[in-house]
Amino acid sequence: MATDEIRRSIGTLETASAAATAAARHAAAASGAAEGGPDLFGKDFLLTWDKRRESLEVIIRAAAVLKALREADLTTRLFDSGLAVSQFRDNSTRTRFSFASAANLLGLAVQDLDEGSSQVAHGETVRETATMISFMAEAIGIRDDLYIGKGHAYMCEVAGAVERAHRDGVLARRPAVINLQCDIDHPTQTMADLAHLVERVGGFDELRGRRVAMTWAYSPSYGKPLSVPQGVIGLFTRFGMDVRLAYPEGYSLMGDVVDKAGAFAKESGGSFRICPTMEEAFDGADVVYPKSWAPFAVMEERTRIVGTGDRAALAELEKRCLANNARFKSWECTNALMSRTRDALYLHCLPADITGVSCAQGEVAADVFERFRVPLYRQAGWKPYVIAAMILAAKFPDPAARLARLAGDRQPRL
Amino acid sequence: MATDEIRRSIGTLETASAAATAAARHAAAASGAAEGGPDLFGKDFLLTWDKRRESLEVIIRAAAVLKALREADLTTRLFDSGLAVSQFRDNSTRTRFSFASAANLLGLAVQDLDEGSSQVAHGETVRETATMISFMAEAIGIRDDLYIGKGHAYMCEVAGAVERAHRDGVLARRPAVINLQCDIDHPTQTMADLAHLVERVGGFDELRGRRVAMTWAYSPSYGKPLSVPQGVIGLFTRFGMDVRLAYPEGYSLMGDVVDKAGAFAKESGGSFRICPTMEEAFDGADVVYPKSWAPFAVMEERTRIVGTGDRAALAELEKRCLANNARFKSWECTNALMSRTRDALYLHCLPADITGVSCAQGEVAADVFERFRVPLYRQAGWKPYVIAAMILAAKFPDPAARLARLAGDRQPRL
Amino acid sequence: MATDEIRRSIGTLETASAAATAAARHAAAASGAAEGGPDLFGKDFLLTWDKRRESLEVIIRAAAVLKALREADLTTRLFDSGLAVSQFRDNSTRTRFSFASAANLLGLAVQDLDEGSSQVAHGETVRETATMISFMAEAIGIRDDLYIGKGHAYMCEVAGAVERAHRDGVLARRPAVINLQCDIDHPTQTMADLAHLVERVGGFDELRGRRVAMTWAYSPSYGKPLSVPQGVIGLFTRFGMDVRLAYPEGYSLMGDVVDKAGAFAKESGGSFRICPTMEEAFDGADVVYPKSWAPFAVMEERTRIVGTGDRAALAELEKRCLANNARFKSWECTNALMSRTRDALYLHCLPADITGVSCAQGEVAADVFERFRVPLYRQAGWKPYVIAAMILAAKFPDPAARLARLAGDRQPRL
Repeated sequence: MATDEIRRSIGTLETASAAATAAARHAAAASGAAEGGPDLFGKDFLLTWDKRRESLEVIIRAAAVLKALREADLTTRLFDSGLAVSQFRDNSTRTRFSFASAANLLGLAVQDLDEGSSQVAHGETVRETATMISFMAEAIGIRDDLYIGKGHAYMCEVAGAVERAHRDGVLARRPAVINLQCDIDHPTQTMADLAHLVERVGGFDELRGRRVAMTWAYSPSYGKPLSVPQGVIGLFTRFGMDVRLAYPEGYSLMGDVVDKAGAFAKESGGSFRICPTMEEAFDGADVVYPKSWAPFAVMEERTRIVGTGDRAALAELEKRCLANNARFKSWECTNALMSRTRDALYLHCLPADITGVSCAQGEVAADVFERFRVPLYRQAGWKPYVIAAMILAAKFPDPAARLARLAGDRQPRL
Repeated sequence: MATDEIRRSIGTLETASAAATAAARHAAAASGAAEGGPDLFGKDFLLTWDKRRESLEVIIRAAAVLKALREADLTTRLFDSGLAVSQFRDNSTRTRFSFASAANLLGLAVQDLDEGSSQVAHGETVRETATMISFMAEAIGIRDDLYIGKGHAYMCEVAGAVERAHRDGVLARRPAVINLQCDIDHPTQTMADLAHLVERVGGFDELRGRRVAMTWAYSPSYGKPLSVPQGVIGLFTRFGMDVRLAYPEGYSLMGDVVDKAGAFAKESGGSFRICPTMEEAFDGADVVYPKSWAPFAVMEERTRIVGTGDRAALAELEKRCLANNARFKSWECTNALMSRTRDALYLHCLPADITGVSCAQGEVAADVFERFRVPLYRQAGWKPYVIAAMILAAKFPDPAARLARLAGDRQPRL
Repeated sequence: MATDEIRRSIGTLETASAAATAAARHAAAASGAAEGGPDLFGKDFLLTWDKRRESLEVIIRAAAVLKALREADLTTRLFDSGLAVSQFRDNSTRTRFSFASAANLLGLAVQDLDEGSSQVAHGETVRETATMISFMAEAIGIRDDLYIGKGHAYMCEVAGAVERAHRDGVLARRPAVINLQCDIDHPTQTMADLAHLVERVGGFDELRGRRVAMTWAYSPSYGKPLSVPQGVIGLFTRFGMDVRLAYPEGYSLMGDVVDKAGAFAKESGGSFRICPTMEEAFDGADVVYPKSWAPFAVMEERTRIVGTGDRAALAELEKRCLANNARFKSWECTNALMSRTRDALYLHCLPADITGVSCAQGEVAADVFERFRVPLYRQAGWKPYVIAAMILAAKFPDPAARLARLAGDRQPRL
């Protein structure tokens, strides 16, 4: 049975890889070398919209092969040594474990870069530090999501530094930078969400026309990043889905990403629409993703205030935001709301603010959450495999062939 | 020579395994499936008295095989990848290294769960966090010994969470929870103590009738956990030993565990007795284990006060306890006391409070400690192997066969 | 091409090994067993001057083989398990990553000893802790450079402890202590510097007669360790080089090390001279190493004050030192100074204080630094290989044979 699952998943990956290769050739022919060629091998994974749709499918399919191999207790070690460097500029248990799990799956050892952010703050030092930590590194996973305009820029700077060091012959190999959450996107999360969804509906083709409600939800905390909702609308719109985004007045996302979502929906034959209420977004939805976030404008203001070090202003902003949040306590995913959907699947990146459980009132009613607890844990279970697939695809020119060989070897993990 | 030692240790393990299998069958026949069947494979290791005596022998014997293989520089890697998660809710260098060493012996990578205890305090979150860290975990080692009524309960909660996640299909494999010290028992320590003792006396049969003095000893510190003395009386009584527990008035242990020790002694043909003085316990002893601990009632009071956050009350309790401790400065393991024994072996879990060395007056005289320093270090040296054996026995249905195969392969470690 | 490089590097290592063996025999014949015999295998690496010159060549050559193997993506794993323990008594990103990289190259897992220095402060405890962390350890890397008279002494104490535990049969294997920077020497840095230089000039023979300027340079910070300049003059003088040391009045190094440098220069046919100005040191230099340090006398005073805990005195000392430093702002490595050299190679252990980049005025002009950035990064890139070579040579009696076998196996790393 395990063998069948492995064989099936490899077949699907091979099909996806062939499509990705064709798409790369097509892009090269249409717009020249700048746009064409592989967008995974030798590259970083920073934003899903930097990748062709077909390439995203390769990642999801490679993750499924890795999962099938692991569940059959076959080895997935592709490296006999090498480092996976992690840098968390924000506390994180789940992402830390996901990255460590992914590294371990592939045979890499994790080494944390635990520097105070001040030490790697300025251009010169970023370039130097990035090079100094990379002599044996295959991947660098970074989480930097707190300040608007910072996280993605920092990742690009690290990527530029290791790229240059590789070109200069300082680094024999060029580590791939993996975005473990930035101010703009959260690709390891949303790709895991997508992998989960694809598994539930039975394939990428089955995504077409499905309605997704990505909505704001009330939380008694403040300053939650925008990367998940932005990542979801920027990813799900690429697969022909009918994506609805809903939030209270004032909670808008980055305009750029919203524009991208619209364009993607058009391109993929799906749709994208902003709704004023949870109800409207939930009506007839197949998938709901209710989650709190801070308004983009507030995140900008907060970043500015943090820069000045004015604690009083920061406290005042928090107070004001919490008060504003409290105006929208009705934005909660209840059974009543769920009954408006087409028996929708509930998604969340976890941890959720569960009413009566983790807080007095929160994003989701306890009975809704409880009903979806097992699928939610499965959703989260995709993350290590998605990260491993991202690293794999960045380091090996033909991941499908590599995984097929691993599957053929059938080397037991124990 | 190494080969002989390996062969011998495997033979002994095979005998122990056969006895354990027979005992499991017997238990199943006598009391039904609930009591019978394997109590190591697929299980956690939380308290020694959850395990059949024969199963404990399997652990000790498997530890000896691992030690012999390692000392012959043969590989003991049974996993080519996988995580061993550790959670230390208390500072620890020795246990941390023992766990890391055990993981490394087996081929697992350590990943620390370094969450503030507040974040995993309540039911919902424990279940979720335990699942989220376990996608690639083979074992979860937890140390949580500070508060009465908390540590063991927490470990059970984690074990329940991963058991459920495994049954729900969220976790492909079910990590084994290993108690690295709780409020009740300290099985990795006492099993290492036992392994050391078995090696010294020449086998489990040689333990019968040996007299053990588990005694309180004076320390100028306060609040030391009860897990070691409780673990010792709950373990050594199972092998026909003559166990004497001595402590000053007011320093009693948990009643439940004391009751268990009495019952075990009866069952195994040994004896268990509480003595009022160190002298009485030491008289004719073959093994002495003098060690400080806080009274159970004080630990309960301390737990209660910590819960209220009343710092003044806590300081007052500490002052009172230290004053009370000071009444029993004569409870020190001196040469005079040692001369009452039958040339006893001195045991300690380390670090010891050594008079004139680590404190002005403490648990043991410097000359006694010095005489036993090398055996004490050997005693400690068993810990990584005991932990590895616990993981091994939890993950493989037939550890004896697995280790015999490893020994047959003779794969060099270097 | 990779294969040629590997073959060539192994040939050079074999020649160096033969010379080292002959030197060991010669030393044994000349001065008895105490001086002769291997000084790498089974030993620690604490100070370069504890090692014969020929042995240092073996390390550099072994590092080059490891580098060639790695760059050809062949495995360098010599251990299938085992720990590399690290203890950083001072913050460190670069050295931490270098050590982790070295461990990973060889197949060892890093385990940090993250104890507050207070817990391992006194003799008894150092012996015990060193033993307790070493049951599976192959190497212990220590960085302890802040206090004069402390770091090297501590490393010797750890080395003595594990040596004794090994002799007592407590440790089956004796971990090698590797000095990752102490108060006296910084051998992993200076050996990496030397490896870089040897590569640049084309061999050890090419070092003879080259002029090296090891000079002080201005920095707006205080209390930088002496280990780099001391290590450089104690190492480079052993290879027939013409070493000039320059510093402002009051910035002298430890007298012992200066004496050693003089003796080494005589012995190796080179020279060693202290110059009063940067200009004089730079004149006709082939290599320059301008770097800030604190005067030895100030470091002694600082160590004494830290011992008393007198914060006001410490602040006063810092103020006084910074003011004194400021008198020598002209000690900066500028293009004008570089033009006095014979097109010298600029070396630095990084991070450098770069004028106008990392500080208003510092050790080196931005254009000089920029011109040497790539070579500086290559210089740093030798460190993981040098550390791995030190561990390798301490653990295997014939590293050349071992590496030749690895190269012959051609086992891919991916």
